[in-house]
Amino acid sequence: MTAVNHQFRLAARPVGAPKASDWKYGSEPVGEPKDGEVLLKVLYVSLDPAMRGWMNDAKSYIAPVAIGEVMRALAIGEVVESKHPNFAKGDHVSGLLGVQEYAVVAGAQVNKVDARFAPLPAFLGTLGMPGVTAYFGLLDAGKLQAGDTVVVSGAAGAVGSVVGQIAKLKGARVIGIAGGADKCRTLTDELGFDAAIDYKAEDVKAALARLCPNGINVFFDNVGGDILEAALANLARGARIVICGAISQYNNTTPIKGPANYLSLLVNRATMTGIVVGDYVPRWGEAVRDLAGWVASGQLKRREDVVEGLETFPQTFMKLFSGENNGKLVLKVA
Amino acid sequence: MTAVNHQFRLAARPVGAPKASDWKYGSEPVGEPKDGEVLLKVLYVSLDPAMRGWMNDAKSYIAPVAIGEVMRALAIGEVVESKHPNFAKGDHVSGLLGVQEYAVVAGAQVNKVDARFAPLPAFLGTLGMPGVTAYFGLLDAGKLQAGDTVVVSGAAGAVGSVVGQIAKLKGARVIGIAGGADKCRTLTDELGFDAAIDYKAEDVKAALARLCPNGINVFFDNVGGDILEAALANLARGARIVICGAISQYNNTTPIKGPANYLSLLVNRATMTGIVVGDYVPRWGEAVRDLAGWVASGQLKRREDVVEGLETFPQTFMKLFSGENNGKLVLKVA
Repeated sequence: MTAVNHQFRLAARPVGAPKASDWKYGSEPVGEPKDGEVLLKVLYVSLDPAMRGWMNDAKSYIAPVAIGEVMRALAIGEVVESKHPNFAKGDHVSGLLGVQEYAVVAGAQVNKVDARFAPLPAFLGTLGMPGVTAYFGLLDAGKLQAGDTVVVSGAAGAVGSVVGQIAKLKGARVIGIAGGADKCRTLTDELGFDAAIDYKAEDVKAALARLCPNGINVFFDNVGGDILEAALANLARGARIVICGAISQYNNTTPIKGPANYLSLLVNRATMTGIVVGDYVPRWGEAVRDLAGWVASGQLKRREDVVEGLETFPQTFMKLFSGENNGKLVLKVA
Repeated sequence: MTAVNHQFRLAARPVGAPKASDWKYGSEPVGEPKDGEVLLKVLYVSLDPAMRGWMNDAKSYIAPVAIGEVMRALAIGEVVESKHPNFAKGDHVSGLLGVQEYAVVAGAQVNKVDARFAPLPAFLGTLGMPGVTAYFGLLDAGKLQAGDTVVVSGAAGAVGSVVGQIAKLKGARVIGIAGGADKCRTLTDELGFDAAIDYKAEDVKAALARLCPNGINVFFDNVGGDILEAALANLARGARIVICGAISQYNNTTPIKGPANYLSLLVNRATMTGIVVGDYVPRWGEAVRDLAGWVASGQLKRREDVVEGLETFPQTFMKLFSGENNGKLVLKVA
């Protein structure tokens, strides 16, 4: 093959918000698959807040991306050449393909997706990692009950928008916290949330007190910081807090702001649990089956924010932190 | 009756550490029991960290003590006069009798204790509220498993010393955190802890890393602050943190120090749960039965630190915060 593979490799560990120079955009010849491998053309790259954590040299649930390594990312690819019996040219797959145009990976490390069933970007959002995170985070870690008052932060994002809709499906009252009037309108008018709080315009703690007079039963947190504090101040007895992420804190150069009012857990006999979706791999199919059914029946609405051009990766990725995306942020490569 | 009842009433809400003038020591005639009530002579008053919280005008699991009200405290009393069919003169009872010499209370609000079975102060410690807190906090909220590595803060205190001993009984490895060489020696030499960390002399985070090379499975926290941070930095996958108290933070005049590294809950898929022993009232007998059995067999050692003189209440109470007590702190009234 003489084709060229453009790619972003990690060039430096970011201090605070990543900048373009933290990656090196380069090219190399497209690789050759060995036995058991497939050569993939990358079609869509998933941009997720967790990727910011993978850039730090810190103990976490996954090893950091090494300096010089292709930036790690979930993606959807199309099989160009297969040396694995399960895959044929033209198949679509998802996996950790990286921020690049072509990837050579072991067949065991990717999963087929069926493009006849849903548009490919959906497999990076509602039917992919964010959807499965929402599903198990809410139902397993959050122990959702019908009649619960559920609050979700980052509610217009890939995970939050699914959390809120599943909670509605299961008979809960749902309040979303998001930034800006547009996103809040999306939550209430399109996604069926009972109420939305614009954290850029409102006092979140006061709004939660007003909207949750009997307290919060489940708080699904993607944001951390002041919003976590505001939720802790409004818990119901026996509340469950699901810690899925803390996007407000990922670019900190000072220590993370921990919840000063964590003793609300004691006062309210509440629980705070951290989740990592990778732990649910053995039950992945169970979640996708339900999610796909709800999408098919129109009960679960997908929202993808697709930006075109691999070369826009650094600035497009930063939309996650400025909150410019509305729905699952995906980079279209080709 | 012409007897006089000396008592401490709350005079002011403390700012920071309580001072003697936050209570008023006074006297009044001993009250007369009405139908359904008993008149009790108070023999032993329990001094517990939770009492500091009851002095604040803040939403909590129990209403604050009102200004002018007798200071709330658990205590052991002897029935002087009974107008309740279940109690006779000479019976011993436990209940919220307050920091005073005599109390008139409804019979329904006290429970008999049997002085032939254990010394009366034991019913305020190992066989009372602290022991039951330790029992359910560790076994129910903490979901202790044989083989776990358990770390307990405030380990020489009324709750912590029982937590560590129950954990040992159940086949765990136990590390206690306490202040001073004497307390640490008590833990390892008398109470059977595997190791002790003197937080006044050692770097707790480094000591935990050294003593828990595979991480902490259960952290039972009575202290909060830097010690909670140190434990969060050393969690095993799936760890359970039980928030029982935060004595390091109760006298703060600035906001409480929340755990900046709470995202360790996410990295380690860990859970932090607050407990209030009052929720276990329906199962109280179950705990006391086990605790009493272990005391009788010598597997669970009691430690009470008994100080004489009701009038010493303000300064004796403050020993809890300076860490001067070694074991359950009890005020002997008569």
